[in-house]
Amino acid sequence: MKNIESQNIPKLDGNFDKDLLQKAAKDFGTPLYVYDLDRIQERYAQMKAAFGGRKTMICYALKANSNLSVIKKLASLESGADCVSLGEIQRAILAGIPKYKIIYSGVGKQAFEIQEALRIGILFINVESKEEMLLVESCAQELGVPARISIRVNPDIDPQTHPYISTGLKENKFGVSIEEAKGMYLLAHHSKYLEPIGIHFHIGSQLTKLKPIAESARKIAQLAHSLLALKIEIKFFDIGGGIGITYSDETTINPYDYAQAILEELRGLDLTIICEPGRFIVGNSGVFLTKVLYQKMHQNKRFVIVDGAMNDLIRPSFYDAYHQIVPLNTESQELSSADVVGPICESGDYLGKNISLPSLQNGEVLAVLSAGAYGFSMASNYNSRPRCAEVAVENGAIRLVRKRECIEDLIVLEKDYL
Amino acid sequence: MKNIESQNIPKLDGNFDKDLLQKAAKDFGTPLYVYDLDRIQERYAQMKAAFGGRKTMICYALKANSNLSVIKKLASLESGADCVSLGEIQRAILAGIPKYKIIYSGVGKQAFEIQEALRIGILFINVESKEEMLLVESCAQELGVPARISIRVNPDIDPQTHPYISTGLKENKFGVSIEEAKGMYLLAHHSKYLEPIGIHFHIGSQLTKLKPIAESARKIAQLAHSLLALKIEIKFFDIGGGIGITYSDETTINPYDYAQAILEELRGLDLTIICEPGRFIVGNSGVFLTKVLYQKMHQNKRFVIVDGAMNDLIRPSFYDAYHQIVPLNTESQELSSADVVGPICESGDYLGKNISLPSLQNGEVLAVLSAGAYGFSMASNYNSRPRCAEVAVENGAIRLVRKRECIEDLIVLEKDYL
Ligand SMILES: Cc1ncc(COP(=O)(O)O)c(C=O)c1O
Ligand SMILES: Cc1ncc(COP(=O)(O)O)c(C=O)c1O
Repeated sequence: MKNIESQNIPKLDGNFDKDLLQKAAKDFGTPLYVYDLDRIQERYAQMKAAFGGRKTMICYALKANSNLSVIKKLASLESGADCVSLGEIQRAILAGIPKYKIIYSGVGKQAFEIQEALRIGILFINVESKEEMLLVESCAQELGVPARISIRVNPDIDPQTHPYISTGLKENKFGVSIEEAKGMYLLAHHSKYLEPIGIHFHIGSQLTKLKPIAESARKIAQLAHSLLALKIEIKFFDIGGGIGITYSDETTINPYDYAQAILEELRGLDLTIICEPGRFIVGNSGVFLTKVLYQKMHQNKRFVIVDGAMNDLIRPSFYDAYHQIVPLNTESQELSSADVVGPICESGDYLGKNISLPSLQNGEVLAVLSAGAYGFSMASNYNSRPRCAEVAVENGAIRLVRKRECIEDLIVLEKDYL
Repeated sequence: MKNIESQNIPKLDGNFDKDLLQKAAKDFGTPLYVYDLDRIQERYAQMKAAFGGRKTMICYALKANSNLSVIKKLASLESGADCVSLGEIQRAILAGIPKYKIIYSGVGKQAFEIQEALRIGILFINVESKEEMLLVESCAQELGVPARISIRVNPDIDPQTHPYISTGLKENKFGVSIEEAKGMYLLAHHSKYLEPIGIHFHIGSQLTKLKPIAESARKIAQLAHSLLALKIEIKFFDIGGGIGITYSDETTINPYDYAQAILEELRGLDLTIICEPGRFIVGNSGVFLTKVLYQKMHQNKRFVIVDGAMNDLIRPSFYDAYHQIVPLNTESQELSSADVVGPICESGDYLGKNISLPSLQNGEVLAVLSAGAYGFSMASNYNSRPRCAEVAVENGAIRLVRKRECIEDLIVLEKDYL
């Protein structure tokens, strides 16, 4: 999606307005993540409403943005949580998500994590292989409590997204084939320590086409039918996450159509639908603010050097992702194409290439749009750069939700060993 | 470099031996970075020796591996430091690098960082644009001390490496053209607050060919000659870093040939050579240890799921980098091709693709070789995974040099805002 040249300065996402963002930058400094909690509420409500009266549980996928205050907001809306590590489970609990709304996914769960999940008593564990199922069983046996599980089935369908976030093809590490799943359900059904209550698939992230999801749901629904025929009483049909969002002008999946397509495939199946959206909830609800430090022409190339870098937002260089970039001061003017780059000593350190921008003042703040998902959660300290602060906007008020790191924070686990 | 299939289990780098690594994994857990400080010493000595009697200063590039104990080891060898942020400068000082051996590079220095560098009194600041030079001048004026500077010149030469780490072509953000540099030197020469004492270039990282470096040195040496003719008394000729290392079977640049080529181009110039190696010093001096969690066949594809992930070592997915992977238990056996993948919910989460491995036991430890550079320094907490511990081996003894993070460390800057 790189190298798209937009012709006009794009509009800000959602409820953000330039004055508010200016104020955030002024009060909290840059680089800075700003999350709009009201927008998060809207997006959550949209997804919930799409499934209408049908028994549904939205389990927000924490990996997209695991800030405790973001999760707390979602908890207040009665969201559940899709977690992929013990760290995420503990965040969910701390932020107020009830244990019976927490599910635990991921291909590499370890015994101590499984034990802890069972001890807490979360809703279920999504197992991704037979080996893992047997480990869950032995952990459950040790604790003397049966483990509720769901099995992640790989429908072998091409989700048509970036290969790094495509997960539903058979040549990847996720889940098991339909055939293998059947055997595992039978095994689980007969185990004293396993309680297979769900069925799960997730084919990828930033999906913009409905058909692969509908086809996957169809395949998995057939499996659900045959399990029920065998008296394996599954109760949850977990359709994963992955609904794409608009970064520039992509048309993506409408939640209503999404829900209808799923409901269509589930006809005759009385199962609670679980949905694990991450990006859909938080992606367009966040912006990343960064300040212009220097401007530079190299032959005919224009560079805008900013204080935000790939350690703050790795999506542009890691996924070739495109984010719109909007100056907060300058209204309109003649635009010219520029690369917006960070201070890190790598050519891969850019936030945008060929971005149409007016002439800018040093010190001016730029908003990198749609940065609420897979932004801060992937941030690093590369180049010994402290990670930036995160703030939340709610009802027009801005407040800090994560303090900016200082250099002391970077060395605290090292300095005693000098 | 992905998808190389090696036919045998590779040998361990350097002084590492399997028993020692087993012990490290047992005592400190996995995932784990292990650095061989004796090897670091050897590599430093090699580079130093290559330049023979010539006045040279090796300024280790902290960005490659900024662990305080690694820097301290280099400080004990009389290394200087190439820093790209205030965070790195503070690490260098803390680890015992004298201020007069510290240089400060990077395209996005901010006023507070420049002021601090001037206050500390480091050797010089590498400026990357005229704008930045003027900022340095005004900072110096405020403090009432002249600022020693060097100018990064972009020789516009293709270094023939990965585009993300190629920095010497004119279409990137680094440095200024030779023409522009001349003007800047004249300006600096006449400024009361600027003291141009160096000239700098760096064309990229993981360079395996000498010719682009020699050609760059030639161009920059010509510039140095013309500056000296103008009575601009530069003293340092900073050739940057970038010497490549062997990850599998690449032939790369030998330090002796490197030094000879540079010395050849510098004939007639009585300047101290500064060299900024990062990867060359630490790359092959570190391994990343990870434990097998699960194994899985999907149709005909073999997956080895380990406890290390792309948040620990992002090079394979970010740069398509190839790292050899060696099991520590199993000696030899029939090998088959496997993808070594982590627990993160992305297909991009892999440490190696098509790696030849014997059949493995769960719990067995694998060593990912040549992971000492751009490994931990790029690590993140993605998926709320605590960053792993780092240990150092010296004289056969192993000791902790950075504590493993715990979940509490991940939320300490957030929890007060709940
Ligand atoms: C199992 C699972 N569920 C949900 C998600 C969330 O995806 P998205 O943010 O695209 O909705 C992911 C993303 O990787 C996932 O792997
Ligand atoms: C200016 C500068 N010096 C030195 C280095 C170190 O490079 P390497 O680790 O390849 O030696 C870099 C790497 O990005 C750099 O940008």
